[in-house]
Amino acid sequence: MTTPPPPFRHIAIIGLGLLGGSIGLAVAEYLPQATTSGYDLDPATRQRAAERGLVGKVSDSGAEAVAGADLVIFCVPPGAMAAAAAAVAPGLSADALISDVGSCKVSVARALAEALPDHDRRGLIIPAHPVAGTEHSGPDAGFPSLFQHRWCIITPRNLTDEVDKLNALVRFWEAIGANVELMEPAHHDLVLAVTSHLPHLIAYTIVGTASDLEEVTQSEVIKYSAGGFRDFTRIAASDPTMWRDVFLSNKDAVLEMLQRFTEDLTSLQRAIRVGDGDALFDHFTRTRAIRRSIIAEGQDDARPDFGRSDHKAG
Amino acid sequence: MTTPPPPFRHIAIIGLGLLGGSIGLAVAEYLPQATTSGYDLDPATRQRAAERGLVGKVSDSGAEAVAGADLVIFCVPPGAMAAAAAAVAPGLSADALISDVGSCKVSVARALAEALPDHDRRGLIIPAHPVAGTEHSGPDAGFPSLFQHRWCIITPRNLTDEVDKLNALVRFWEAIGANVELMEPAHHDLVLAVTSHLPHLIAYTIVGTASDLEEVTQSEVIKYSAGGFRDFTRIAASDPTMWRDVFLSNKDAVLEMLQRFTEDLTSLQRAIRVGDGDALFDHFTRTRAIRRSIIAEGQDDARPDFGRSDHKAG
Repeated sequence: MTTPPPPFRHIAIIGLGLLGGSIGLAVAEYLPQATTSGYDLDPATRQRAAERGLVGKVSDSGAEAVAGADLVIFCVPPGAMAAAAAAVAPGLSADALISDVGSCKVSVARALAEALPDHDRRGLIIPAHPVAGTEHSGPDAGFPSLFQHRWCIITPRNLTDEVDKLNALVRFWEAIGANVELMEPAHHDLVLAVTSHLPHLIAYTIVGTASDLEEVTQSEVIKYSAGGFRDFTRIAASDPTMWRDVFLSNKDAVLEMLQRFTEDLTSLQRAIRVGDGDALFDHFTRTRAIRRSIIAEGQDDARPDFGRSDHKAG
Repeated sequence: MTTPPPPFRHIAIIGLGLLGGSIGLAVAEYLPQATTSGYDLDPATRQRAAERGLVGKVSDSGAEAVAGADLVIFCVPPGAMAAAAAAVAPGLSADALISDVGSCKVSVARALAEALPDHDRRGLIIPAHPVAGTEHSGPDAGFPSLFQHRWCIITPRNLTDEVDKLNALVRFWEAIGANVELMEPAHHDLVLAVTSHLPHLIAYTIVGTASDLEEVTQSEVIKYSAGGFRDFTRIAASDPTMWRDVFLSNKDAVLEMLQRFTEDLTSLQRAIRVGDGDALFDHFTRTRAIRRSIIAEGQDDARPDFGRSDHKAG
């Protein structure tokens, strides 16, 4: 029995936080024939990455990390993509495939294309977004199974440029556990605005609102958070730099979704004010079905309370 | 070694859904010397409750269930408290303590007092609210450890009426696992408006917004829900009848909190529109601290993603 060759021989990872670190660990686990190298702008992150073995070799510069790599994945916040790409350019192989894990695809594709015009011209930039993560960030947050049963959306410019590279990228993500879907970049940004960006904005807002009250103390908010609030605090604990960049990079789609959300909230607010119990009941009944589908498709844990009740603090 | 006598000999539970069922199972587990009886308006729930043994005896009427009980706990939605209390009145012992588990305390205290004026006059109505639950409801949802390490807020009218009964109720909740705190009813309603009612309203809203889009399909919303949306669907899967009643019963506090939330959201929306990255970053940094406190106080699971990543669908 022979192992098929990995889709890429040498994968360079730029940015060694939750996503970059998880990719490095996943390659070591599921594609052990491939080599990995990596770089992070932060010296403390580089040191920790080396200690945890997130990649085979942690380099002292981006250009050194990408030397000889046939796949380079940028795992930095959307706003840092352009600078990270420009910094590695001197070390890049002419035929290396360039990809990323950013949560916004239109702006990131543009930033990478501008920073690496030769690769862009030859169709060697294929952005991607694994829809996976936790509220933790940094070099200690990654783990190899992060992408198992999660979707990775790949947004090629078109399907004719470098189709072999595209196929290899699909095989790469499948090899480390993801289901892959191809999507048009602008559509990706709209879909994620509703499934990810708006939920984060709402969670950040409500946690802020609760922190600023005078009549209710911070200690009360914490104590009685099991009534629903604590779920929002998890999301609102996500990396601030990354999320600042997401909202600035996907501004139009986020503002569009926010407008619709506000209209719907205003309508429920009116139902409460006038005491329209039927309108509330109908709305609350309708929203149950979507959870059943999410569980049926393996995108969430069916156990009550995400299984937290099984694992309480002693 | 002798076991101390239970704070109540016979506990009657009216309403055998998630909360009522969990109390019955918790009494069987942690206060086995006490007797339980119960009733639910729905015959199918009564049958299932008997099959699961949620209480020692499932009765065919509320009045029969409360006969001989020294503690009666109403576990029905806030809007159903008055009718449920009126229905059991003929069977009630004159010195039985009356309590409940409703999420709103001012309106429920009033409803119980009006339905049971004799008990009210003698200080025998002491409302309570265990801040615990899951998104599941009905007679199959309960489990005995639901209240472990969760807070139960007790809202006596004052501390001089029937202080022995109050102490017994405190001991009862502590015996089945809860931490107890006494609180003024109106303050309870304000605290819960922010830690529970507003989060549910927001979650119901965003799940509705996502279901109504034309540009993004339902199937896409489900597939890519791991980006944050799926957490909201859990909360928005909660019991519609109960939540309709909560919003109608705690209208003023909910509308007040909603107003503040909307102001804060509008301010973040403006920061996105004008590209004020510093304002976004500052807000997102501030909201991380509160999560650390919630975990430190044992009110949530510290594992990333609530531990869901450890337990993925095969």
